[in-house]
Amino acid sequence: MAEQPGPEQSPSRRALLARIGAVAGGAAMYQAMTALGVAAESAYAGPVKLEGDARGASVLVLGAGVAGMVAAMELRKAGYRVQVLEYSDRPGGRCWSLRGGDRYTELGGETQTVGFDHGLYFNPGPWRIPYNHHAVLDYCKRLGVALEPFVQVNHNAMVHGRNAFGGKPQRYRTINADYQGGIAELLAKATKQGKLDEAVGKQDQEILLESLRAWGALNTDMTYAKSVLTSDRRGFDRDPGGGLTARPVPSEPVAIKDVLSSRLWSYLVTGSLYEFQTTMFQPVGGMDMIAKAMAREVDGLIRYNAKVTEIRQDDRGVTVTLRDAQGAGGAEQVRADWCVCTIPLSILSQIEMNVGAPMAAAIRAVPYAASVKVGLQFKRRFWEQDEHIYGGISYTDLPIRMISYPSTAYGTPGKGVLLGAYAFGPYAYEFTALPAAERVKRALEWGAALHPQYKDEFDGGVSVGWHRVPGALGCNGAWTDAKRDEHYDNLCALDGRIVLAGEHASYIPAWQEGAILSSLDAISRLHRRVVSA
Amino acid sequence: MAEQPGPEQSPSRRALLARIGAVAGGAAMYQAMTALGVAAESAYAGPVKLEGDARGASVLVLGAGVAGMVAAMELRKAGYRVQVLEYSDRPGGRCWSLRGGDRYTELGGETQTVGFDHGLYFNPGPWRIPYNHHAVLDYCKRLGVALEPFVQVNHNAMVHGRNAFGGKPQRYRTINADYQGGIAELLAKATKQGKLDEAVGKQDQEILLESLRAWGALNTDMTYAKSVLTSDRRGFDRDPGGGLTARPVPSEPVAIKDVLSSRLWSYLVTGSLYEFQTTMFQPVGGMDMIAKAMAREVDGLIRYNAKVTEIRQDDRGVTVTLRDAQGAGGAEQVRADWCVCTIPLSILSQIEMNVGAPMAAAIRAVPYAASVKVGLQFKRRFWEQDEHIYGGISYTDLPIRMISYPSTAYGTPGKGVLLGAYAFGPYAYEFTALPAAERVKRALEWGAALHPQYKDEFDGGVSVGWHRVPGALGCNGAWTDAKRDEHYDNLCALDGRIVLAGEHASYIPAWQEGAILSSLDAISRLHRRVVSA
Repeated sequence: MAEQPGPEQSPSRRALLARIGAVAGGAAMYQAMTALGVAAESAYAGPVKLEGDARGASVLVLGAGVAGMVAAMELRKAGYRVQVLEYSDRPGGRCWSLRGGDRYTELGGETQTVGFDHGLYFNPGPWRIPYNHHAVLDYCKRLGVALEPFVQVNHNAMVHGRNAFGGKPQRYRTINADYQGGIAELLAKATKQGKLDEAVGKQDQEILLESLRAWGALNTDMTYAKSVLTSDRRGFDRDPGGGLTARPVPSEPVAIKDVLSSRLWSYLVTGSLYEFQTTMFQPVGGMDMIAKAMAREVDGLIRYNAKVTEIRQDDRGVTVTLRDAQGAGGAEQVRADWCVCTIPLSILSQIEMNVGAPMAAAIRAVPYAASVKVGLQFKRRFWEQDEHIYGGISYTDLPIRMISYPSTAYGTPGKGVLLGAYAFGPYAYEFTALPAAERVKRALEWGAALHPQYKDEFDGGVSVGWHRVPGALGCNGAWTDAKRDEHYDNLCALDGRIVLAGEHASYIPAWQEGAILSSLDAISRLHRRVVSA
Repeated sequence: MAEQPGPEQSPSRRALLARIGAVAGGAAMYQAMTALGVAAESAYAGPVKLEGDARGASVLVLGAGVAGMVAAMELRKAGYRVQVLEYSDRPGGRCWSLRGGDRYTELGGETQTVGFDHGLYFNPGPWRIPYNHHAVLDYCKRLGVALEPFVQVNHNAMVHGRNAFGGKPQRYRTINADYQGGIAELLAKATKQGKLDEAVGKQDQEILLESLRAWGALNTDMTYAKSVLTSDRRGFDRDPGGGLTARPVPSEPVAIKDVLSSRLWSYLVTGSLYEFQTTMFQPVGGMDMIAKAMAREVDGLIRYNAKVTEIRQDDRGVTVTLRDAQGAGGAEQVRADWCVCTIPLSILSQIEMNVGAPMAAAIRAVPYAASVKVGLQFKRRFWEQDEHIYGGISYTDLPIRMISYPSTAYGTPGKGVLLGAYAFGPYAYEFTALPAAERVKRALEWGAALHPQYKDEFDGGVSVGWHRVPGALGCNGAWTDAKRDEHYDNLCALDGRIVLAGEHASYIPAWQEGAILSSLDAISRLHRRVVSA
């Protein structure tokens, strides 16, 4: 989850936007883009400074996800007495990695035991960090979380459509080169025929033609046709070599009309979106390295297995009622002067809490997006060995939507774990409804359309449907623009002694950056209130 | 060197191609592309199989670069008695890394002592490995050379032109987004005005428009104008955040005519070229990890400091005369049944050798390309800390041509070494003629146009001009297509008991892949001759 329904999911997201655009026109389209959290560079201004005396005030932080732990870390540093209540038995929330031996019980009671080999992992939640998510990167740096590049675009990965090229997967590079070359040729032709004379001055037309030739790999006659030049983008039929058997054989481009009707062009945009531009990162060893590093910082402050059942504030403080998450023992109450609540709205909306009507309405207003991820272990890294795909993502219009290859341990022998499905929207609901083993089986069947090796090489899988994750009940807050206009500020504003934080209280929904920035903003406002009281 | 005048050097290479195209028309352009070694996926078919009995035949391998060491390794495995003669005092040839404490004396006698911090390095020669260079990757795998991703394209890196935008560097992402959006808008407008009716059918026009809108980030009115949608490609004026201070502010795109006249579009092609597509690699710790791993394999076979002065064959074998490279002692002769000669043609053409007229002419025919690299150490990784550039390359039309940031140790404190210049063509000759310190000084002055921090943060540099490297005398064999037609096969063919190998004997000039494939082809032919004799 985490980025769902983030900008990457080009096809469905684009389809959705196109629908909105078609029905409601430009303004709605614009607003929908905002609502979907398309925009994303961080407004992080460096380590938060909470100046002024907290005078020993106490804070209860609800939730030990990234937002909650950041709040705990920074508030303690500023002199607060902090306690964190966490529903599950581990820190991190959606910042989570599954490894061999891990057991995960979803809503409905089904338990999966992960059978991955030592050193292999799967991130059910966030799995990559954009270069422009400065807060996440800075916390990684400060907490010593080692990062390595995450490969988003791989020119040698596949793009696949059930009805495109007879269902045969294509290489990203061929579709990318042929689309670019095809439209460059179209525009060059129109320019040379004088059809752009109104739009572009004569001198600019010359530079335009020169640029199209360079950029589109057009031959000197301004066509995008079979040549060494075009093969230097899309690849060769026979590659150049050394010695006497070296001469390359160019490949035949796909005509632009066939590229267009294949609709595989819809996957080309992936690496140009702000959050998916190079250089992206991932923590070495799994995304939960961030959670673990934060948990070390707030060591001793977190009480696990604490299910919050009621949040009640008065003039002097906040009382939280809790029970053991496993159901042992009776109700218990803890009290503090202030409360930073990072519980997902999907759950918070079911907890009794005396906040004002505006915040209460906001909490109820935001539905949670659905997503399902499937991690698959294979006996060998066949995508590297057979297909020379090192990291990156293949895309498909099948319900699995994509296959993401590990951006680490390239070329190593032994087993490998890849992301075998990242379904969202209607597909995700359908997927979530299935038993876990069935989800894995479907991911295998669909994925075999891209990689026939799936059948022989499969070695175990695990699946996480976010609407079945206890403590989350969904992937992320799915704001619409109308809801944001009405409720967002009310959700974020301090209500008496309670303030909310988390990705749902940000303009970067579904990303850890949103969670952290929301948390920093919330505790800054809380602190100002405390200091000025 | 290594890739010079490889496909990446878009501006000069493109300018050259454009000149050829303008003067000589399409066929010459096509041939020039071939000559420049544009084409590049490997024809590697897996580990070489030298079957049949070598009957204890002996081979002299001249040169312990990558081609020579591969020949030695594989021939020994096939049962040959192998000796390698190497001019310098280290293995690897152009596969070379400079580290703190290293001393390098160039032609002319000037010695540089490298002052880099522990763990930092600079590759004067090859510095990256394409995913389609299967032979290099396979040798890395077999020899246990650890690889990590090399970042070629970084959307947050700079593109810079002296006359573009008042000399102010732009982010790659803004020029990329605005060029793409600009031409998408132009083509969409022409399509809607019916100007493409001859070229594209009505139904395809609809898909074309849809694709342009998605791919170019066009708004619903099919313009590429300021919006969240376009800022999601080029970046925001004010980035989205969390809590109550979160609302993003879109940025204003640059008009297509200004993008065109800036000529910065010429740098956009870099990541689409076959050899520069994701995912690229580099050895962890420096390119010479490959050389060192190969040298371990042929441990004891290499005689260093051996300057070959004559190569003479007769019906029974080959006699090589050598002297100590430092001038100590007199001439000496070694003899073997066969000879695999990987000495660069720039040097081989000066060595007496009795081969047939065709090979002799081929050896004399190929000039060597010029290139200069400058490695700069800075007190801190300001490109990451100040500018959020993690790996990748900034481009400029200044003589340094580019600045490449280290694709490793991201976010670490302490010093960092970057590639501060990679000059080629006329710039390289001019650079090479200067004393080493002056080359570094110029690189600093020019680089400061992109990074003003250069002045305060500089902490030492080293420069290598390949025409001054003893044992290389140039960067790589610079074939023209006419020369290739006339001489290439003669260069590669077995001449009596002598066969040549190296990047110059391949269709992948300047790349290690060419050297290895050439070597494998050469020894395979040699072996067939031995076995069938």
